Amino acid sequence: MKVAIIMGSISDMPVMQEAINILKEFNIETEVDIVSAHRTPEKLFDFSKNAHNRGISVIIAGAGGAAHLPGMVASMSPLPVIGVPVKSSNSIDGWDSVLSILQMPGGVPVATVALNGAKNAGILAAQIIGSANKEVLQKIVNYKEGLKQAVLKASDDLKS
Amino acid sequence: MKVAIIMGSISDMPVMQEAINILKEFNIETEVDIVSAHRTPEKLFDFSKNAHNRGISVIIAGAGGAAHLPGMVASMSPLPVIGVPVKSSNSIDGWDSVLSILQMPGGVPVATVALNGAKNAGILAAQIIGSANKEVLQKIVNYKEGLKQAVLKASDDLKS
Amino acid sequence: MKVAIIMGSISDMPVMQEAINILKEFNIETEVDIVSAHRTPEKLFDFSKNAHNRGISVIIAGAGGAAHLPGMVASMSPLPVIGVPVKSSNSIDGWDSVLSILQMPGGVPVATVALNGAKNAGILAAQIIGSANKEVLQKIVNYKEGLKQAVLKASDDLKS
Amino acid sequence: MKVAIIMGSISDMPVMQEAINILKEFNIETEVDIVSAHRTPEKLFDFSKNAHNRGISVIIAGAGGAAHLPGMVASMSPLPVIGVPVKSSNSIDGWDSVLSILQMPGGVPVATVALNGAKNAGILAAQIIGSANKEVLQKIVNYKEGLKQAVLKASDDLKS
Amino acid sequence: MKVAIIMGSISDMPVMQEAINILKEFNIETEVDIVSAHRTPEKLFDFSKNAHNRGISVIIAGAGGAAHLPGMVASMSPLPVIGVPVKSSNSIDGWDSVLSILQMPGGVPVATVALNGAKNAGILAAQIIGSANKEVLQKIVNYKEGLKQAVLKASDDLKS
Amino acid sequence: MKVAIIMGSISDMPVMQEAINILKEFNIETEVDIVSAHRTPEKLFDFSKNAHNRGISVIIAGAGGAAHLPGMVASMSPLPVIGVPVKSSNSIDGWDSVLSILQMPGGVPVATVALNGAKNAGILAAQIIGSANKEVLQKIVNYKEGLKQAVLKASDDLKS
Amino acid sequence: MKVAIIMGSISDMPVMQEAINILKEFNIETEVDIVSAHRTPEKLFDFSKNAHNRGISVIIAGAGGAAHLPGMVASMSPLPVIGVPVKSSNSIDGWDSVLSILQMPGGVPVATVALNGAKNAGILAAQIIGSANKEVLQKIVNYKEGLKQAVLKASDDLKS
Amino acid sequence: MKVAIIMGSISDMPVMQEAINILKEFNIETEVDIVSAHRTPEKLFDFSKNAHNRGISVIIAGAGGAAHLPGMVASMSPLPVIGVPVKSSNSIDGWDSVLSILQMPGGVPVATVALNGAKNAGILAAQIIGSANKEVLQKIVNYKEGLKQAVLKASDDLKS
Repeated sequence: MKVAIIMGSISDMPVMQEAINILKEFNIETEVDIVSAHRTPEKLFDFSKNAHNRGISVIIAGAGGAAHLPGMVASMSPLPVIGVPVKSSNSIDGWDSVLSILQMPGGVPVATVALNGAKNAGILAAQIIGSANKEVLQKIVNYKEGLKQAVLKASDDLKS
Repeated sequence: MKVAIIMGSISDMPVMQEAINILKEFNIETEVDIVSAHRTPEKLFDFSKNAHNRGISVIIAGAGGAAHLPGMVASMSPLPVIGVPVKSSNSIDGWDSVLSILQMPGGVPVATVALNGAKNAGILAAQIIGSANKEVLQKIVNYKEGLKQAVLKASDDLKS
Repeated sequence: MKVAIIMGSISDMPVMQEAINILKEFNIETEVDIVSAHRTPEKLFDFSKNAHNRGISVIIAGAGGAAHLPGMVASMSPLPVIGVPVKSSNSIDGWDSVLSILQMPGGVPVATVALNGAKNAGILAAQIIGSANKEVLQKIVNYKEGLKQAVLKASDDLKS
Repeated sequence: MKVAIIMGSISDMPVMQEAINILKEFNIETEVDIVSAHRTPEKLFDFSKNAHNRGISVIIAGAGGAAHLPGMVASMSPLPVIGVPVKSSNSIDGWDSVLSILQMPGGVPVATVALNGAKNAGILAAQIIGSANKEVLQKIVNYKEGLKQAVLKASDDLKS
Repeated sequence: MKVAIIMGSISDMPVMQEAINILKEFNIETEVDIVSAHRTPEKLFDFSKNAHNRGISVIIAGAGGAAHLPGMVASMSPLPVIGVPVKSSNSIDGWDSVLSILQMPGGVPVATVALNGAKNAGILAAQIIGSANKEVLQKIVNYKEGLKQAVLKASDDLKS
Repeated sequence: MKVAIIMGSISDMPVMQEAINILKEFNIETEVDIVSAHRTPEKLFDFSKNAHNRGISVIIAGAGGAAHLPGMVASMSPLPVIGVPVKSSNSIDGWDSVLSILQMPGGVPVATVALNGAKNAGILAAQIIGSANKEVLQKIVNYKEGLKQAVLKASDDLKS
Repeated sequence: MKVAIIMGSISDMPVMQEAINILKEFNIETEVDIVSAHRTPEKLFDFSKNAHNRGISVIIAGAGGAAHLPGMVASMSPLPVIGVPVKSSNSIDGWDSVLSILQMPGGVPVATVALNGAKNAGILAAQIIGSANKEVLQKIVNYKEGLKQAVLKASDDLKS
Repeated sequence: MKVAIIMGSISDMPVMQEAINILKEFNIETEVDIVSAHRTPEKLFDFSKNAHNRGISVIIAGAGGAAHLPGMVASMSPLPVIGVPVKSSNSIDGWDSVLSILQMPGGVPVATVALNGAKNAGILAAQIIGSANKEVLQKIVNYKEGLKQAVLKASDDLKS
């Protein structure tokens, strides 16, 4: 019941930190590393082939531009892989990372979240764990209740 | 350990059938229904609020155009929701369904797969179940091995 | 003869304020609230199902990203719903909110205005009321005359 | 309580016919004409300036490509104008008509519906009338109920 | 041998000024005005119907968003109309003004230049005049020679 | 008073024929040739440098994909150059030819018309000639009158 | 002096065949194989790490959708890699393959050619070999001369 | 064994400098110049026709907007031409330069790299030279090893 959070470059950390934070809120253990599909392909192989044997349940992978990290991990790991398209500096408005993560061929899915949506990637990882773990499922229920209360409070503030 | 597959309209069935088929291959029980966010909102509420109490582990939701079904289910269910953007007849090349499913706000993720990627949605659902179920995990490993063998055979055929 | 102005998040207020302002100019009563399709779905239901019984004539709904609020309100209310795509911070240049509001399926229209076009949403609401109310219609005529005079004055200033 | 349905070219009729049909279903009187912003500008002026004096409550205008008809009518009429982007033969996937109708400047709104969404334009016109007419409002309520029943029946058929 | 330069709003002036400047360089007389298709339609009519009778040879029209000014002038004037798409503040990256000026229907061309390309609009107007005026044609030849010399000088500077 | 119509490949002829036809209607002499920027660069140079010395008044250039023909002719000829983006078989929906013709740098305009808009290119060429030729100008006036009558007739047919 | 041509799936062969054909015309030896980044990652590793030790000079890799093959080969091979974006059946108009091949991060280039541009990939491979091989360079010169003659002949045919 | 680096304007230098720098790192001789397709077409011809006779092995050409420089050089030189799309100030998000460089017609390839990807253009040029030069090939191998070590170090830093 551990979530691995990997990213293609340390420059993706400001975006990916949100996944780490929300999983901490849910008290789910995380493992964070930099694994570049294009610069450290051997590490990519090692990581992907062994993650499910090291007690990891879900993998979150973030990358920008022609983002191959999530898809390549998905090609070698049987675990669910969540892809976070990161809007990097020379990106064409983020379309490149969105499409290179989302449009995976038949047989090798990547669970894609919104551009820079690392927080949602963390929540989705918790939901995946929660789908077989009542305690975590309840935390999700509580979290959604918290979202609701925040909106209701904002609504009350607006009216007062 | 059941996967619910819902779609906004019966016209989405030719695309969504691939999710049903692949889950059958994995011997994972499915429940199929039509739930329209825009035409049967009460059913949407009932379905979303109760799915996790009815033994469902993962929800796959497919819709086209301004596709609100996956996101609305995700707003009310604690379960992981997989969204399948369907390229419907009056779609603007599929961009509308892709963006209305992918770009969910913080707090409410939808695990989005490729345009018309219902098969991958089914595999992803199996992977989610497999993340806490060794037997299903092994099926995924085997499935990926099958994909590999098919490519290697095509390669051999090409050379002979 | 009241217009409800709702938005998915308090962060949409700077954009949506323009709808409130222009309706005030027209002396049309407004009701403002935060209703999140994804965080407060029950409130969304209550609001949508009852608005027409509470003296509301038109609903303006603004939201960003995968913007489901206008469409979901339209699915449950018989009133005309005006959708304002809001360009939020992680939006893909606004395309996501535009397409998830505009491309509604047959049977459930949303009257969509330009990206961040809350002012026009307010004018459109007044026009809808004016279509059955001569006094308000005359205000629209006067308003358009004012637009014209401002352009003519700018033209005169340019030449002098 | 009459809806004018105009289009830029007779070639838009197959799309626009759906607006006529649905308004007939609602027993709302229609007036249909061809008014080209680019080929009959004088007729455009006459039509737009006088529609509200001829008992028309709502105008539906459909056009393709660089679609100026809805916006130009809106510039001269105080009535609510519903714009239908038509995907014509040399259109760039419909983006041209969508953007030239949707992105109106402040002061001159056009209520835009989906690409080729003439049916929804008709329903929206009925909703606009219904916002001040209880009988028509009830028809909308009934229509939505019909949509729901059709989906529920499709769902039942699927299961049986 | 006069060029009219019109724009939809005074806010377009910073972009359009470049057309005025370059035409001054060519010693071609200009006439500048604000004519809004959506706010001063009568002025639009007067201007368009009469420009060719007032000694104007070419019309340059700039506008942003759903930019109808160039096309509407072109619908009523027999003169060549050059359209300048202006990237205004709420534009969707300029695509809206580009497509609503470029994609004119058969029969009513607008000579479209690049986004914010007012300088090129001025040069094109000079070329149009030059196509029947040897003196102006020679100025264009000289202008192009100047462009060449500037690049050659930059190249020399780079090497020295 | 001759218009040159050139295209990058004989496969562009079905589109470009419309320019030839409409200029024939206007009794304006045409010269048609194939000049490929990428395959016959020397011919491109010869053509562009000499066209204005051979009695040509306007150049129409059509090309698809990364369409460099119109811009390269414009870089070497002082004449007005009209660019026709052609939607060729491997085009990305026509965006490539539109953008490579439209987005010319400062100093070198191309008068761009709609995708596949060869007919409008012909009309624009006639308007350019007409801007200094009363007889041709009158033909444009008559042509526009013809467009109007055709729409009015279609309107009458619709009503009868 | 051998060119390897690999593709992600046998379904890419109709497109990729053009690269094989043109290289045959140039009498350059080819080696053709199917290597799927997502289905045969081990083969991808073996191929990429060893190609330069097996006498291969250039690698051409074609793939569709979220196309990771060219980039992953480039990450592991020191050879120049030419990427061919293939417009596959569920592609979003080819944008996905174009962007996932083109937008590679700093350090790992892929020489990208046009959508479905396998023929150009073959010519580019020949040019790369020709840059250090006078005989092949001369073949390129001759090939370009042939292109020119074909256009000149088409031009002559048109005129006769 | 020299690489020519040309650009359409001195304003492209900040982007193109990265190509010069990386080639210096590889100890590969460079020649830098400004050659504008649209402003100095004669220089473009001279440069393109003679580069391969002056000891140049590879040409890198950068340009923005409707970027014709890389394609026009490729039309006249038998050498491999690498195109760098530059995101210039009035570009439509870079799409114009990407598409006008990438989408070259059959027969005339340009090896396109990412938007503003001049560094990768330099590496690709080195790889092209390395494909026939063991010493340079080894430098590429070493460079890639350096990329790997940098990522591994960042990973170590993260964990410590």
